Amino acid sequence: MDRRSFLTTAAVGGTAAAGLAAPAIAQGKRTLTMVTSWGRSLAGVHDSAQFCADRITALTDGQLTVELKAGGELVGPFEVFDAVTSGQADMYHAADYYFLGQHPGYAFYSSVPFGMTADELRIWYYQQGGHDLHDELGQIFGLKSFIAGNTGAQSGGWFKKRIETPEDLDGLKFRMPGLGGKALGELNVSVQNLPGAEVYQALASGAIDGTEWIGPWSDEKAGFQEITKIYYTSGFHEAGPGLTLATNRDVFDSLTPGQQGIIESTAAHAHEWTLTLFLANNSAALQRLIATGVEVNVFPDPVWDAFGTASKKVLDENLDDPLYKTIYDSYFAGLKTSASWLDTSSGEFTRQRDRVALF
Amino acid sequence: MDRRSFLTTAAVGGTAAAGLAAPAIAQGKRTLTMVTSWGRSLAGVHDSAQFCADRITALTDGQLTVELKAGGELVGPFEVFDAVTSGQADMYHAADYYFLGQHPGYAFYSSVPFGMTADELRIWYYQQGGHDLHDELGQIFGLKSFIAGNTGAQSGGWFKKRIETPEDLDGLKFRMPGLGGKALGELNVSVQNLPGAEVYQALASGAIDGTEWIGPWSDEKAGFQEITKIYYTSGFHEAGPGLTLATNRDVFDSLTPGQQGIIESTAAHAHEWTLTLFLANNSAALQRLIATGVEVNVFPDPVWDAFGTASKKVLDENLDDPLYKTIYDSYFAGLKTSASWLDTSSGEFTRQRDRVALF
Repeated sequence: MDRRSFLTTAAVGGTAAAGLAAPAIAQGKRTLTMVTSWGRSLAGVHDSAQFCADRITALTDGQLTVELKAGGELVGPFEVFDAVTSGQADMYHAADYYFLGQHPGYAFYSSVPFGMTADELRIWYYQQGGHDLHDELGQIFGLKSFIAGNTGAQSGGWFKKRIETPEDLDGLKFRMPGLGGKALGELNVSVQNLPGAEVYQALASGAIDGTEWIGPWSDEKAGFQEITKIYYTSGFHEAGPGLTLATNRDVFDSLTPGQQGIIESTAAHAHEWTLTLFLANNSAALQRLIATGVEVNVFPDPVWDAFGTASKKVLDENLDDPLYKTIYDSYFAGLKTSASWLDTSSGEFTRQRDRVALF
Repeated sequence: MDRRSFLTTAAVGGTAAAGLAAPAIAQGKRTLTMVTSWGRSLAGVHDSAQFCADRITALTDGQLTVELKAGGELVGPFEVFDAVTSGQADMYHAADYYFLGQHPGYAFYSSVPFGMTADELRIWYYQQGGHDLHDELGQIFGLKSFIAGNTGAQSGGWFKKRIETPEDLDGLKFRMPGLGGKALGELNVSVQNLPGAEVYQALASGAIDGTEWIGPWSDEKAGFQEITKIYYTSGFHEAGPGLTLATNRDVFDSLTPGQQGIIESTAAHAHEWTLTLFLANNSAALQRLIATGVEVNVFPDPVWDAFGTASKKVLDENLDDPLYKTIYDSYFAGLKTSASWLDTSSGEFTRQRDRVALF
């Protein structure tokens, strides 16, 4: 992957310095362009990107101004990775599993089927080597990446009929992107990869039989409850997908240590803020959905078993790539220890607290 | 509560400007003194305070230098609140339930019995009004406070005999501070409030029959496994205690907006970093404890029922204080919606993932 010299690009009018008045440059002020994979109307994920842009601008007392270009405004939603590695833009905010074509290891930094919850992901990221491996991926492509958000566990999705056995999945036309979709393909689901804007119409017209989206808050905004009432709140495919703020590495290296630290801490703050935004809104939205007649379902054990077998097959496919295997091994080792402790400690506490139910 | 004028204090040699060379002042550089409730050897919580001090210094490119004074170095561990409200120091890092004497509402910003997990606490804090109420408390005392860490769910503790019925608690000499200890007092436990440094010796000598501490990582460092092997991993008293970084409000108001933002984002980053530090280390430490023969126990349902009744009584005692009641109502309303959604979504996912157990 080609790197670029930030200074060269800036000197010839690259985006990093575009539009800056001479006095601003003289004071050391710079404008950084952030491209995102999100439309401006996509609640939660766009909000997370805007939070990062605004906070970096504020925390540097205006020394850096981050200008957000939403998906499609400068480049397409899935072109943000290449735009930043090439130096066309300075930063992106996206979900890294959009970039499996660049490297399959990026899957682990959003979510893999049967993978980590948001809690487990950040334990791995901060304390068990996850960030260092993100950095190793970034060195290949000239990126400095930080986890900067999380949607929380995504819902199983909307169906026209209940899924009572694995056989009920057979021939179903279902929208699910990424490795989760690949896993459904192993179960004879006809997987449809539709852009977000087309999903509602496809479900309404019968072009698809079902779709997952994000969770109650986002799903309610999309309006799927107008088409079907059969909802599965828990899914196998994305238990805590991370969002990433990635900066062109030459740009990052040209910043002061304080500005670099501000980007890193803003990303961590955005993680807290975004995850809690989704979780708080999901609680309230689910109650509203139920009030309109939406039926909350859970997949039966044999369906989860089928999801599991298919997920393992899909996840094991890239193990011949050494860096993928390193990340895979690190990720699942972290998951095992974290899952065990969380269940033993806060898991047991919440089971008892919710059983006793005094407050 | 008296406020102080930062500028006046600084001009007469207050801590904020103490030790600054003239050229540093001329460049606008300032030193802030952070006092903490932690000894330097107290892993996790001291690390969290040091993380905050170092990151604020780094992110301001040295415009602010935060000097950490551990518990006892400038003032005693529990005197940090008064030191910062009086202007003797600029910031504190502590657990806010040490300051119930100042206001009982501070309990909710670390932990209350049968209260929130770390996840639930931050949903409330960031999205359901928790931070605004923290700010309202801070306005009474001249503080600007942010949650800046969490230990995760604390363990039930170490006992010389198993607790099989609520009656087994009768007459037990047990160390537990705070509202949890008050709740145990309702169950005829003889509650001992010993300073941390004295607990090991008291348990070894038989002066107490048991103690809670933090969790496997910290408990192992304290060495309780050398005295008894009967360990309860999950407790009712502190399911996700927050740590607080509080700044004297006049000092905070005198900072640039960027520096104020850096303190806020550093606190959020410290929350992520500290919580994951505890969770990652607890996983590994519990395995080591088990390998030395420590027995992992869970309290039976009737014991949890007794804990619950006593906790409710203790928590309801301050409801005649209007601000306490406002915080209480906000906190438990948040807890209910969050707990329900977390169980429905990531709870169901992890139950299924751990049952299928493919990775």
